[in-house]
Amino acid sequence: MKIGVLGTGTVGRTIATRLVAIGHEVTMGSRTADNEQAADWVGEAGDRAAQGTFADAAAFGEIVFNCTAGVASLEALGSVPGEDLAGKILVDVANPLDFSRGMPPTLSVSNDDSLGEQIQRKLPDTRVVKTLNTVNANVMVDPGRVPGEHDLFVCGNDADAKAEVSELLESFGWTRERIVDLGDITGARAMEMYLPLWLRLFGTFGTSELNVRVVRRPDS
Amino acid sequence: MKIGVLGTGTVGRTIATRLVAIGHEVTMGSRTADNEQAADWVGEAGDRAAQGTFADAAAFGEIVFNCTAGVASLEALGSVPGEDLAGKILVDVANPLDFSRGMPPTLSVSNDDSLGEQIQRKLPDTRVVKTLNTVNANVMVDPGRVPGEHDLFVCGNDADAKAEVSELLESFGWTRERIVDLGDITGARAMEMYLPLWLRLFGTFGTSELNVRVVRRPDS
Repeated sequence: MKIGVLGTGTVGRTIATRLVAIGHEVTMGSRTADNEQAADWVGEAGDRAAQGTFADAAAFGEIVFNCTAGVASLEALGSVPGEDLAGKILVDVANPLDFSRGMPPTLSVSNDDSLGEQIQRKLPDTRVVKTLNTVNANVMVDPGRVPGEHDLFVCGNDADAKAEVSELLESFGWTRERIVDLGDITGARAMEMYLPLWLRLFGTFGTSELNVRVVRRPDS
Repeated sequence: MKIGVLGTGTVGRTIATRLVAIGHEVTMGSRTADNEQAADWVGEAGDRAAQGTFADAAAFGEIVFNCTAGVASLEALGSVPGEDLAGKILVDVANPLDFSRGMPPTLSVSNDDSLGEQIQRKLPDTRVVKTLNTVNANVMVDPGRVPGEHDLFVCGNDADAKAEVSELLESFGWTRERIVDLGDITGARAMEMYLPLWLRLFGTFGTSELNVRVVRRPDS
């Protein structure tokens, strides 16, 4: 499959590398067509890897991953001509973490809205699926790095889009039983507002390779 | 031990009942000394149970539980004379859920502050420990209702207070290994901002008797 990855940071490079490794063609997008980190990645990732602008990557992809920094996501997506994302699935991996006020970061949007919803409103013809934002980049593409069973959340307004993204997640190693569908895109509030707890657990345990497993009373 | 429980709702009554059952004396506090729900509870709970105003319950308790509705907690605590909470441990179980704008509730405070911090600021001579707010009332006092291992978070500025509260949590059935200390009271942001995810999981699975287990990469 042809996939566009927006963003050249750790998350974008990790996901793009994994996508190429499992057989996809990937164009990595950034603000400029000659971004150095993207160029380094293309050099390492081989024949199925290319780079370009955000618009180039979005136009290339049948599915597009938003791996830009959350506070820059709307601007990045705004630089893509509408037709290049219309009808497509956009996998929104970003968290709206605002580091401008120091550590720990706050969320630039939360509580009665979310980045996932903002993106869906900005791109009404795109099928936005929020997922992967609750684990670190290594765990996103290789859940076995965290032992035992643990869960990944997805949400979005389009059931077919969630099913297609779930298949892609399975190819990363997530089992269907551990992919928890939280419903429509407003679930992004819950998934993004979990980040302060994730950050706190990171600090407590000294590792970002952690996740949660949902456990519940049976037959209730 | 003499314990004050502020609040007559499901959480207050459930915790108070459990405390009496394991041998403590409990005074349940509300806005008025003759609250009907508290009176019903006293009738059921027996000799070690009593009721009174918030001030009565706080004055009675060596440890005090805040089980009032989060949006009403500061007002409730404000009705207690300062000396009746000074030096004591206040276990803050409340969530700042604001239902005034419909369902799902938003948080009345979040992101760069929390109810736990607001309470600690209001009561600088009280040792506030935030805990139990991430599970439903039945699970709070009987974690075995959710099968397998799952975690309870605590935070607060005073290590001795957290240790003492942890002993109480152990008497509820939480094992020491599953009580995760998230550090100082600013951890309340993380614990309260988790609520939207908890509410979403409740909706997804159709049960509120659920919790999360933190899993992480070993030796990292």
